[in-house]
Amino acid sequence: MTQQASKLVIVTEKLLLKKIAKIIDNTGATGYTVVEVGGKGSRNVRSSGTPTLNDNYSNIKFEVLTPNREMAVKIADEVATQFFDDYSGIAYVCNVMEILHAHTF
Amino acid sequence: MTQQASKLVIVTEKLLLKKIAKIIDNTGATGYTVVEVGGKGSRNVRSSGTPTLNDNYSNIKFEVLTPNREMAVKIADEVATQFFDDYSGIAYVCNVMEILHAHTF
Amino acid sequence: MTQQASKLVIVTEKLLLKKIAKIIDNTGATGYTVVEVGGKGSRNVRSSGTPTLNDNYSNIKFEVLTPNREMAVKIADEVATQFFDDYSGIAYVCNVMEILHAHTF
Repeated sequence: MTQQASKLVIVTEKLLLKKIAKIIDNTGATGYTVVEVGGKGSRNVRSSGTPTLNDNYSNIKFEVLTPNREMAVKIADEVATQFFDDYSGIAYVCNVMEILHAHTF
Repeated sequence: MTQQASKLVIVTEKLLLKKIAKIIDNTGATGYTVVEVGGKGSRNVRSSGTPTLNDNYSNIKFEVLTPNREMAVKIADEVATQFFDDYSGIAYVCNVMEILHAHTF
Repeated sequence: MTQQASKLVIVTEKLLLKKIAKIIDNTGATGYTVVEVGGKGSRNVRSSGTPTLNDNYSNIKFEVLTPNREMAVKIADEVATQFFDDYSGIAYVCNVMEILHAHTF
């Protein structure tokens, strides 16, 4: 059941978690993962310099597998349009990806 | 010491952590990382809708660097055969990867 | 605003967090994420066998988007030269990446 896919990655501020999850759901993507991350963006608005492991995990990283680049771009465009004027965020896509097994996820 | 590699990613349920780690070890892979993730799969069996950051980190994501695609497929096949009938899970591979330094990991 | 980029991934020991963040900053990279990970490296120096989710999250994973492979290699070389003789670590790069939106990160 090997199939090609794209992986969309979105890193942005934690408070947007539910809103972005809803956007992903609405596009018909079948699943995603999300994890809290520390880090630093180019504007430095959201980070207080060098990260520590006790605080500053104020960002989240979504990874969404999509069947094609178009769906990844659609999600990224919607997220950027709604939020990236006001919040720190980046969206990028890995084009080459091969799904080996995906029974239930 | 640049070398090509594949990266296998497996996202599945947390309770399979030790069993999957053992499968990876047994194939001869030299290392992996694992992190807890929230998210949502297509069957929705394991997630309670929109994730929050306080709960629902019930999944794990393994990343395994393998010297070639064959080892990645071997691990994914073994994991899928043993667990993906009964548990949510996905396994995918990134084909292009360049290891720059790997002295000890 | 689509643009190509490289993604550098560095997995190493947690105590190097601030020093590696400083190296990344000094190269002019505009941002990165960092997350705690469990796992196992080939030397087994830093892991106590099969990971559990209660302990052993003693490693960190940096992801750095760079405008080209050269900057990724520069960061990796500097990190490896300074630390990989004494600490567990791996640095690898994903060559194909397309940044869709990056207003502020």
